[in-house]
Amino acid sequence: MPILLPLAAALFAQAATPAQPAPKPPLSPSDIVAAAPASAWRTIPDDDILIFTLANGRRVIVQLAPAFAPRHVERMRVLVNARWWDSTSVYRVQDNYVAQWGDVTEKKKLPAGVADDGPAEYIRTAGVPSVRLTRPDSFASIAGFDASGWPIASDGKSSWLTHCYGMVGVGRDLAPSVGSSAELYAVIGHAPRALDRNIALVGRVIEGIDALSSLERGTGKLGFYGDAQKPTPIVSARLASALPAGDRPHFEYLAPTSPAFARYLHARENREPPFFTVPAGGADICNVPVPVRPKK
Amino acid sequence: MPILLPLAAALFAQAATPAQPAPKPPLSPSDIVAAAPASAWRTIPDDDILIFTLANGRRVIVQLAPAFAPRHVERMRVLVNARWWDSTSVYRVQDNYVAQWGDVTEKKKLPAGVADDGPAEYIRTAGVPSVRLTRPDSFASIAGFDASGWPIASDGKSSWLTHCYGMVGVGRDLAPSVGSSAELYAVIGHAPRALDRNIALVGRVIEGIDALSSLERGTGKLGFYGDAQKPTPIVSARLASALPAGDRPHFEYLAPTSPAFARYLHARENREPPFFTVPAGGADICNVPVPVRPKK
Repeated sequence: MPILLPLAAALFAQAATPAQPAPKPPLSPSDIVAAAPASAWRTIPDDDILIFTLANGRRVIVQLAPAFAPRHVERMRVLVNARWWDSTSVYRVQDNYVAQWGDVTEKKKLPAGVADDGPAEYIRTAGVPSVRLTRPDSFASIAGFDASGWPIASDGKSSWLTHCYGMVGVGRDLAPSVGSSAELYAVIGHAPRALDRNIALVGRVIEGIDALSSLERGTGKLGFYGDAQKPTPIVSARLASALPAGDRPHFEYLAPTSPAFARYLHARENREPPFFTVPAGGADICNVPVPVRPKK
Repeated sequence: MPILLPLAAALFAQAATPAQPAPKPPLSPSDIVAAAPASAWRTIPDDDILIFTLANGRRVIVQLAPAFAPRHVERMRVLVNARWWDSTSVYRVQDNYVAQWGDVTEKKKLPAGVADDGPAEYIRTAGVPSVRLTRPDSFASIAGFDASGWPIASDGKSSWLTHCYGMVGVGRDLAPSVGSSAELYAVIGHAPRALDRNIALVGRVIEGIDALSSLERGTGKLGFYGDAQKPTPIVSARLASALPAGDRPHFEYLAPTSPAFARYLHARENREPPFFTVPAGGADICNVPVPVRPKK
């Protein structure tokens, strides 16, 4: 079964023989990430790690982005500490768009202090990208990476998180609704960047996105589950900081300002032989995911 | 459960009361497509419609692109007429990348005339887009739509199909391999545009992409199915042109050169109130899928 690019380097290496050693293939983006020194990685705080456990045992772990949506993240911490998401469900899965979860009954009472109000946290009035992509962005004048490890777009004065695969946002009704922070969605398809600046992004899935993206698509309008379909139960939601020290999962991200990230970005924008023959010379912001990995 | 944008118009309409009629919301992209006149639609030839039927009963229907990959499509017609894909399987599902199918055993003999040879059909030496996007593309100097209904990118001299969600390509090994046309993949995540010009695209899924995108992800390297996983059997593959006239599914696409498509493109690039408040003023080529629908 012929494979697609990522196995190329491996195949190439296999093709080498003692008699005729093959030229060493260039480092792939993942090779570069694997070789990045410890100094290039930044630890994600335990209080920014939100762990959803599904009925099938799978975990969906979300890294929160308090610097971009402080009010929503504050309310999400209230919700998780009140165990509000325990016994809720993933009730909407729209192909090439989003998986959405929360209270499908619409009857569950929100904790004190949590309501659909407050500021619309769709943009930050600061924060041009520390690291920019080589080619233009199709949705904004500037796109790149914030030093804190997030993909952002900017108009030169303000900046905002971009709706890349795996990003997590807050469902809302029509403006002026900003969402209560209780109904969440994750992007499971091609980045719906038109949502940028129109809805609040509060984080990204850093483990288990496939537990959402591989769910049966909803047969109802907009991918809401039909009467004959069973939403996926969410057994519990916990902050890593609320778990016993020994039970906390730890993660780290590759600092966008590190030399290793610069090499990774260049490799993503210019894929190399032996598999690739025509490098694009660029990539969009969602084709250069910030590397995040479990921390030992 | 607060919803995301697409239901906005509907909600807005519901908000209207006889006493205070709400202003009519602007037409959404799907409203524009639904309102497009018959003259804006083009029928897809029966010989370009390839129907894969999975063991679970789901159909994955692919529109072939002979104008872009004539040799591959010619070989695919030989393969389907030889019923080569019957009793093969979907054996690789890599999250946010591709689902791949064909002969997982690597032992199935190819029909006469089908082999991993011939020209690399990665670009066309013609065909600047008939319709262009408003904003720049992150991977090429020009991006837009071919009059024949396909998303393409171009350098001003040549053009090529773009790896958008649902596009179908031919798996290959390292160059000079071009693939035998027997092992195919469909994009099930954010468009891996770095593959453009490096691998042959031969069509797009026009029905049933979710039957591939919702499959369990492979636990092996690159999303190949592990020993404990069962590939999804492909019961049969047939060209619509090989079915009795009454059994043939028919499809049509919205002509990119039609006024209705221009309105659709503008609406996709500038999402409107009542849900959206900040239009992007642009979109990437994969955020403006060419509308394709069953033909009555």
